[in-house]
Amino acid sequence: MSRFFTSRYAGLTPYTPGEQPNRMEYVKLNTNESPFPPSKAAEEYTAKFTRALNLYPDPECRELAAAVAKMCGVEAKNILLTNGSDEILNFAFMAFCDEDHPAAFADLTYGFYPVFAQLNRIPYEEIPLDENFCIRVEDYLGIGKTIFIANPNAPTGICLERSKIEQILQANPNNVVVVDEAYVDFGGESCIPLIGRYSNLLVTQTFSKSRSMAGARLGFGIACEELIRDLNTIKYSTNPYNINSLTMAAALGTLSDPDYTQRNCRTVMENRAYTAGELQKMGFEVLPSSTNFVFAKHAKISGAELYQRLKENGVLIRHFTKERIAEYNRITIGTREQMDTLLETIRRLYGGIL
Amino acid sequence: MSRFFTSRYAGLTPYTPGEQPNRMEYVKLNTNESPFPPSKAAEEYTAKFTRALNLYPDPECRELAAAVAKMCGVEAKNILLTNGSDEILNFAFMAFCDEDHPAAFADLTYGFYPVFAQLNRIPYEEIPLDENFCIRVEDYLGIGKTIFIANPNAPTGICLERSKIEQILQANPNNVVVVDEAYVDFGGESCIPLIGRYSNLLVTQTFSKSRSMAGARLGFGIACEELIRDLNTIKYSTNPYNINSLTMAAALGTLSDPDYTQRNCRTVMENRAYTAGELQKMGFEVLPSSTNFVFAKHAKISGAELYQRLKENGVLIRHFTKERIAEYNRITIGTREQMDTLLETIRRLYGGIL
Repeated sequence: MSRFFTSRYAGLTPYTPGEQPNRMEYVKLNTNESPFPPSKAAEEYTAKFTRALNLYPDPECRELAAAVAKMCGVEAKNILLTNGSDEILNFAFMAFCDEDHPAAFADLTYGFYPVFAQLNRIPYEEIPLDENFCIRVEDYLGIGKTIFIANPNAPTGICLERSKIEQILQANPNNVVVVDEAYVDFGGESCIPLIGRYSNLLVTQTFSKSRSMAGARLGFGIACEELIRDLNTIKYSTNPYNINSLTMAAALGTLSDPDYTQRNCRTVMENRAYTAGELQKMGFEVLPSSTNFVFAKHAKISGAELYQRLKENGVLIRHFTKERIAEYNRITIGTREQMDTLLETIRRLYGGIL
Repeated sequence: MSRFFTSRYAGLTPYTPGEQPNRMEYVKLNTNESPFPPSKAAEEYTAKFTRALNLYPDPECRELAAAVAKMCGVEAKNILLTNGSDEILNFAFMAFCDEDHPAAFADLTYGFYPVFAQLNRIPYEEIPLDENFCIRVEDYLGIGKTIFIANPNAPTGICLERSKIEQILQANPNNVVVVDEAYVDFGGESCIPLIGRYSNLLVTQTFSKSRSMAGARLGFGIACEELIRDLNTIKYSTNPYNINSLTMAAALGTLSDPDYTQRNCRTVMENRAYTAGELQKMGFEVLPSSTNFVFAKHAKISGAELYQRLKENGVLIRHFTKERIAEYNRITIGTREQMDTLLETIRRLYGGIL
């Protein structure tokens, strides 16, 4: 850091995104992208819009907010669109946490939560998952903290029933509970139906996974009007034009073609069942997944080594170094062909010991 | 605000962006957009990229950073790309200001500076411009503060010579000086040539004005490698994938066609001279502008009234309520046809008293 850098952030450890190799020299199963291109409608809408790029986007994103609200069965006033769901998560840390409202989240979850807490100088507690990597609801009851739950969770893939989240909402009426549903479309149970009943609920979702738009950076929050207004106070003090026109156009196109999204989700779930089954046949332990990835380990193969050898052989998966999960790897579910390449590479490398 | 909103931000007054009417029912001269569509190359590059939108963008923006660096005559390590220049300005407040390094900027300048300071709870001083709305360099020498200078300035349009900024850089060796060059391509003198010589200089620019890409949200900072590294610490703790793929593609297209940008800048400057001349003939006082707007007032017409009556008659300009400038209006320079509509509307409304 330079001698000009503020001491406020001297201890900050930034988030490390998954590798984004410049060329597609890898079968890329490391950042939970969709293996399918965006809807053709996304291309058409975007092409129509490029000519008007000299004008600022609508800072209120009225047209897109209305379309997202319709998809969610809520009203536009219940929606805030952001530059990826990372942005709405950061806004939630800013708006609903402070010294008197510390944050709480699982010890094994999205690695950005502790970074956001540190960035905003918010005290936080990491609550250990149980031995099966599940949330123990009783650990979250009446804790007086702003709670962040990735559901389904990453990197485990495990989901929590809506009824259990409802218990947590009821037991923390004076704190916001943020439910991060980035992966919900692959088999999770969304909390959006609870929005009308809990003024302390913020659900976040993204266009990056099921909607094949990771490159466009679009996330959103769903909550009661008052929480959305609070989040807008942060948005208009940070970056009022946070969503660009091209991304809005691509999203409107994607939302006009819901069948395509649903079909892709079904295919990913089929490929997940296939991949998990084949990995289990080879002796891998695979956690039950409600996401577009599986989290797996093998008693005879170190997690770090599997990651490294697959990378050397053209298959990129994601390895985390935290002690409890160091033997696991997170493997994105791609096309059937990509999964067969993964499986064949593992068989080729480890055939003798499997 | 809801009962969950942190007291930290209770007093925050968000920035008010210029009106963005949903339909183009106005001659829109209120937010300093380019009246020209983006380069055809921007459209072509964007269309080529949409198909790969399912993949995350390169968080390091390597290809675009190299192209921007080439344009600026620096190296890619001297560039940080951001979601509009608002984002790099906020990052600069975060990285280089704190209780011991308060911010300082003019009393009349970009209205977002005090919002960023409040958002980040940074003490700040607003230094009055002189009676001609110019910066008095002596007010900025050795002040021990992180200095933000919009150059050319908004909403006045007035520019400061590079040699005077160099005096300020030399007299504040322990503080960063941020030079916000959003409008520099319309006649200002850029400080980019000083980057190699001052480790305390950060220049910010944007694709929103001269490059006809306001809708794409792209800004950038140019500084020595160490300052860029500090700003990256903030970026990777906030939103590592802050620039989407479509915007990067559009920018690469735009940069491949520099003649188009330069031609548009020349046209805007010609239309500015024409508009200023015509307004002066009607008795307006027009400040000397190095930007794509003029700042003007008339002894016989109240600023608020002119804004309101033009709006009622289909021409949108920008009015600010701060006392020193309440009689002025900021008028974006558009096409010759747009400017003629503005001028004719003023003549029609005020013919009797001009």
